[in-house]
Amino acid sequence: MIKVAVLGYGTVGSGVVEVIEGNNAQVSRKAGDELHVKYILDLRDFPGDPYEDRIIHDFTMILNDPEISVVCEVMGGVGPAYQFTRQCLEAGKSVCTSNKELVAKHGAELLETAAGNHCNYMFEASVGGGIPLIRPINSALTAEKILEVKGIVNGTTNYILTKMEKEGADYGDVLKKAQELGYAERNPEADVEGHDACRKIAILASLVTGKNVDSEKIFTEGITKLDIADFKFADAAGMKIKLLAICRSMEDGGVLAMVAPFMIPKDSPLAMVNDVFNGVLVTGNMLGDALFYGRGAGKLPTASAVVADVIDCARHPGKTVVCIWDKEEARLTDAAEMQRRFFVRAKAETAADVEAAFPGGECFAVPEYPGESGYFTPVMKEKEFLMRYQGLGDKVLGRIRLV
Amino acid sequence: MIKVAVLGYGTVGSGVVEVIEGNNAQVSRKAGDELHVKYILDLRDFPGDPYEDRIIHDFTMILNDPEISVVCEVMGGVGPAYQFTRQCLEAGKSVCTSNKELVAKHGAELLETAAGNHCNYMFEASVGGGIPLIRPINSALTAEKILEVKGIVNGTTNYILTKMEKEGADYGDVLKKAQELGYAERNPEADVEGHDACRKIAILASLVTGKNVDSEKIFTEGITKLDIADFKFADAAGMKIKLLAICRSMEDGGVLAMVAPFMIPKDSPLAMVNDVFNGVLVTGNMLGDALFYGRGAGKLPTASAVVADVIDCARHPGKTVVCIWDKEEARLTDAAEMQRRFFVRAKAETAADVEAAFPGGECFAVPEYPGESGYFTPVMKEKEFLMRYQGLGDKVLGRIRLV
Repeated sequence: MIKVAVLGYGTVGSGVVEVIEGNNAQVSRKAGDELHVKYILDLRDFPGDPYEDRIIHDFTMILNDPEISVVCEVMGGVGPAYQFTRQCLEAGKSVCTSNKELVAKHGAELLETAAGNHCNYMFEASVGGGIPLIRPINSALTAEKILEVKGIVNGTTNYILTKMEKEGADYGDVLKKAQELGYAERNPEADVEGHDACRKIAILASLVTGKNVDSEKIFTEGITKLDIADFKFADAAGMKIKLLAICRSMEDGGVLAMVAPFMIPKDSPLAMVNDVFNGVLVTGNMLGDALFYGRGAGKLPTASAVVADVIDCARHPGKTVVCIWDKEEARLTDAAEMQRRFFVRAKAETAADVEAAFPGGECFAVPEYPGESGYFTPVMKEKEFLMRYQGLGDKVLGRIRLV
Repeated sequence: MIKVAVLGYGTVGSGVVEVIEGNNAQVSRKAGDELHVKYILDLRDFPGDPYEDRIIHDFTMILNDPEISVVCEVMGGVGPAYQFTRQCLEAGKSVCTSNKELVAKHGAELLETAAGNHCNYMFEASVGGGIPLIRPINSALTAEKILEVKGIVNGTTNYILTKMEKEGADYGDVLKKAQELGYAERNPEADVEGHDACRKIAILASLVTGKNVDSEKIFTEGITKLDIADFKFADAAGMKIKLLAICRSMEDGGVLAMVAPFMIPKDSPLAMVNDVFNGVLVTGNMLGDALFYGRGAGKLPTASAVVADVIDCARHPGKTVVCIWDKEEARLTDAAEMQRRFFVRAKAETAADVEAAFPGGECFAVPEYPGESGYFTPVMKEKEFLMRYQGLGDKVLGRIRLV
């Protein structure tokens, strides 16, 4: 029997217990041995809970119990979660987590600690919830040189953008509704400013490059400046607006990592990723594009990914599964040096100024906004674009990158 | 150094060599050791080929060489391929293959032989080409009870259906074009009659149930009876027509497996899978739906999946990776017992007869075909539907299942 401890009995923690107990026959068969939750660590008591008898408050009981070989860290945060993870790994206990903040910050170090102690640090649930994504990159697309990973990895903002597009609703109103439905936090900053997506792409970029990509150095722009008019112009041009997290291997050995709203063609596979769903397009040099799509969050999908990691640990006792993410810092390419087209929305009467600033692009209008004009610039360096865009002052109303 | 032999130097075989050599740094790093192609077995000689010196004609050189630990069987067919695979596995050499015919027919037995000899039989490339699909089901979605696998797994027929839909071209004309482009074989029967998709769903169904699903017992219907008018009616109803391979776990422990053209809603994730692309939707009881999408065929994508298997073998020397597919026969549910809606296309003047045969459905017309009418039946058992449909004789022009 494989005995497991769960750190944190919140949403994901209770999901992990539910998956292990609810799918026990399935899970145990795949693990090759019966899986059992022995301890649930939480500060609180849970009187009346069906697993009340397994709740403990003292972490050292887990650390000192030789029967525990796998620990699920689903507390979140980087304080105690970091300490507990380190101590478990040092004691040779594998740790499986959904904690993207901790993985993005200390992934390289914790993987090294795991390898040094013949156990595993696994984090499938940290990106894309229940969608297999880390494991395909680590264990399936292994024959590929991965050229690019590009995806929608934050369900909250994708829900907001989908509603703005489909219902023509205002950003503020949709955010409020998302908060009422529990899709957005009371303090939505981590989602709407792109920080959550940034941590996730930092993790993916680290796995793609094999080097450490510091999330704090990743160019990140959120969705708060998007206007409902932008969606009308996008639609007229056969495009959609999505918050994309991108990581691209550059020819000079550097890596571009960024998070920003992009206009993408309606026939892109990512264009059909709507509502709270996530979708990630991985481009390999042999395979071409592969898309991974599903529920990127939620109690049970996320818990399912944590338990899949537990099963992987159970299948590899005393062995560290290959995961290449060194401490060496990856060389990040400056997003401002990238070349692309841009969409500019301007007051209709200043269309000539916009055209003069970005000669050679194309201007268009939509009937719903007669006082505004849309403009696609030619391909240009982002740095150059921003300089000229800022020079236009209040003649321009908004801008969005084209993918 | 890990020395590999390739059986068959055709399209996939030359792709395997190209991936191992072309991505050698990447591949060797992931494998944890350098990968090298030592032999290429083929009946032919390849004068001037860059790997000419590795071509051999005698299989026993591979079998008797203790340096060879992994063999790629990319010959196809079930004759010599079966014998060679068995002999390699019995000698403790892992075999990685793209040969869906052999996997569908002897998968359970060859997996057992591999397990008995502490090596592996791997077949990621047999379904979905380069899209990771077998490995996600075996190694990632392990915490799930998989309820359904439903997908587009044949690129040739998907190309034909996409062209019929988008260009309004006739089946025969599109098939001819597909043959010219090399997307369809000279003898297209295996694709257009659904046999290829049938073998693939037999493999997936075997992995989902853990028991053997005999491809010859799977209900299979191809695309040859579809008419261009069907696409117009589908479009008017907000639907698309796709050849789906389906495997569903039934509540009574049985499994439904079938291949047939279906009408699916345009907003289904499978509806955006066009041209030669494949897409497979996996539904788990915790995760909900996850979609895997990409190039389901082609030299390099397929070869990439074979080499990913080689890397997995290299990472697990002397160890059999868990893959549950027993020899015990799965209990197949009779497709004729399933309940669903159906689309019926009829001569306009017989619409009343159709309505009388399937009361409670809905009738509709499209401007392009004034002499015909479309009809959606209510939900009914397939057996019942077919009996009544056949009773209508030449009053009806075609029928398609609704998903």
